Amino acid sequence: MLNIAVMGYGVVGSGVVEVFYKNRESIQKRAGKEMEIKYILDLRDFENTPYASKFIKDFNIILNDNDIKIVVEVMGGLNPAFSFVKSCLEKGKSVVTSNKELVAAKGAELLKIAREHHVNFFFEASVGGGIPIIRPLHQCLAANEIKEIAGILNGTTNYILTKMIKEGASFEEALKIAQQLGYAERNPAADVEGHDACRKICILASLAFSKHVFPEEVDTVGITKITLEDVDYADKSGYVIKLIGRAKKLDDGKLIVTVGPSLISKHSQLASIDDVYNGIMVRGDAIGDVVFYGKGAGKLPTASAVVADVIDEAKHDDTEMSLFWTLPEKSIVTDCKKGSIQYYIRAVNAGQAQVETQFGKVDYLTRAAKPENEIAFITAMGEEGVLDSKAEALGQNGAQVLSCLRVLDY
Amino acid sequence: MLNIAVMGYGVVGSGVVEVFYKNRESIQKRAGKEMEIKYILDLRDFENTPYASKFIKDFNIILNDNDIKIVVEVMGGLNPAFSFVKSCLEKGKSVVTSNKELVAAKGAELLKIAREHHVNFFFEASVGGGIPIIRPLHQCLAANEIKEIAGILNGTTNYILTKMIKEGASFEEALKIAQQLGYAERNPAADVEGHDACRKICILASLAFSKHVFPEEVDTVGITKITLEDVDYADKSGYVIKLIGRAKKLDDGKLIVTVGPSLISKHSQLASIDDVYNGIMVRGDAIGDVVFYGKGAGKLPTASAVVADVIDEAKHDDTEMSLFWTLPEKSIVTDCKKGSIQYYIRAVNAGQAQVETQFGKVDYLTRAAKPENEIAFITAMGEEGVLDSKAEALGQNGAQVLSCLRVLDY
Repeated sequence: MLNIAVMGYGVVGSGVVEVFYKNRESIQKRAGKEMEIKYILDLRDFENTPYASKFIKDFNIILNDNDIKIVVEVMGGLNPAFSFVKSCLEKGKSVVTSNKELVAAKGAELLKIAREHHVNFFFEASVGGGIPIIRPLHQCLAANEIKEIAGILNGTTNYILTKMIKEGASFEEALKIAQQLGYAERNPAADVEGHDACRKICILASLAFSKHVFPEEVDTVGITKITLEDVDYADKSGYVIKLIGRAKKLDDGKLIVTVGPSLISKHSQLASIDDVYNGIMVRGDAIGDVVFYGKGAGKLPTASAVVADVIDEAKHDDTEMSLFWTLPEKSIVTDCKKGSIQYYIRAVNAGQAQVETQFGKVDYLTRAAKPENEIAFITAMGEEGVLDSKAEALGQNGAQVLSCLRVLDY
Repeated sequence: MLNIAVMGYGVVGSGVVEVFYKNRESIQKRAGKEMEIKYILDLRDFENTPYASKFIKDFNIILNDNDIKIVVEVMGGLNPAFSFVKSCLEKGKSVVTSNKELVAAKGAELLKIAREHHVNFFFEASVGGGIPIIRPLHQCLAANEIKEIAGILNGTTNYILTKMIKEGASFEEALKIAQQLGYAERNPAADVEGHDACRKICILASLAFSKHVFPEEVDTVGITKITLEDVDYADKSGYVIKLIGRAKKLDDGKLIVTVGPSLISKHSQLASIDDVYNGIMVRGDAIGDVVFYGKGAGKLPTASAVVADVIDEAKHDDTEMSLFWTLPEKSIVTDCKKGSIQYYIRAVNAGQAQVETQFGKVDYLTRAAKPENEIAFITAMGEEGVLDSKAEALGQNGAQVLSCLRVLDY
């Protein structure tokens, strides 16, 4: 009998318990052994569940029970998750987590501790909810040099943008609907400011490029400043605006890692990923572009990813997995302003002459109710920092640059 | 040093050798050991490659060399691939193949032999080219009951249909272009008659439902009878026509498995998969719908999937993987005519009265240059066999049913 402890009985934790008992028979068959959830750690009381007898409030019971071989951490947040996970790994227990904040901040450290103690640290559910992405990426990686990863990594913002694009709702209106439906938190900052997407691209980049990429190294912009004017210009020119997290390897081996609302072609496979769905594109030298699509969040999808990790660990409990990255001596992330990009720019009180003085030849965009004094265009490819200076220069003498978004070629 | 033999130096085989030597350093790092391709088996001469010294023409050299732990079978076809692979497994060598014909016909048998001899039989490249699908499906499966799999599994037919839909090319014109570009064989039957897609859905269904599904059990229809009229009606009504391979589990545990041109909504994630790309949707009870997208064929994508399998085997050469299915005592596939479906029907010389006599209330479709005597509609949900009888009855008394396609709800 393989005993498991689940730490946290929130949305994901209760989903893990539900999926485990619902599909227990096939889970045990696939794992090749009998399995049981012995403890559920939560400070709250849950007296009316069928699992009431399993609840405990003292983490040390899990830590000191040598029967517990696998610990599922689904509490979220950095503390006490980090110290709990660290202690479990040091005690020789494998850990499965859905906690992206933890993996993005402490992944390299925890992977190292796991390796030193011959156990595993798995986190399939930390990116893309139920979409299998961590292992497939690891598998793609096996025979490919990964050149770029780009994804719609946050369901809340994708829902809001979809409402703006498809129904003409303003950002504020769309956010309110998302909150009513439970897709957005009452304090939506982690989603709409891009922090959640940032953590996820950090995890993917760390895995793909074998060195830890920290959230602080990522140029992160949210969607709060996206207006219906931008959505409209994009739409009329064959683009959609999506919040894209991306990590791109440059020729010198350094990475550009950004999160920001970006224009992508309607023909892109990422363009048709709507509502709360996520999609992740992996670009490899042999494989070309591969896209993984599915529900990026939610109780059961995320729980099923956690349970899949548990089964994998149960099956291979004497094998150390090769999912791994290390702390770099020096950051492998370079200033995104040094990368080449095209910009979409919307400005008022600037004429074509001023635009072309700064940017040379550009593609002008239009929309139905375009005011006389508004101008929107897509620049030629240029160094991002140089384009920023030009945009700043354009916004002089009464002119004002209202939007400045990357145009990406997926 | 782990020695590998590659059997077959065609498109995929030469790709495997190319990817292996190009990314050898990272491949060895990921496998955790030194690796070498010791032999390449091919009856033809390849004197001008850098690997000329590795070529052999006698399979027994591979079979009897105890240094060879992994054999890559990329010859294609059933014979002699089957006897070669069988012999290798029986000699305790793990086998990696891209050969869908082999896996679809002999998968259960070879998996059994592999298990008996404590080696592995891997075939990630047999479906979806470079798209990781076999392992992710296996992983999804771990915590999910799979309810349905549906995919665009053949790049050639998808290219032809895309040309018809986007450029108004006829089937014959589109096929000719596909042949000129090397996407279609001179004898295109295996692709356009649906046999290739059929083999792939057999492999996916066998894996998802643990029992071998044979190509002969699958209701398989190709795209040769699709006309621009059908494409046009679909387009004007919010659908596209795609060649869909699907396996659906019914409440009684039996499967419906079909391959055929089908109408799917333009909003479906499968609808935007164009040209030679493939996409596979997996529907699980916890995970919801997950879609995997990428290049379904081609030298390097397929080779990279083969090499990923080789690395996985090298890494876990003492572990037997749980990818497995068995020969069923009795087929688990039921007659697709017993399933519920909606039909798209196009007929001539039949009026609305006759249509409604047979089908009751239907949705009529229209197109720009619709001739007076043509009628097209989508039926309500009904048992497929019953709808067939009604369509036959409609095609009486001078009326003629020209097209009858499934409408699928992905």
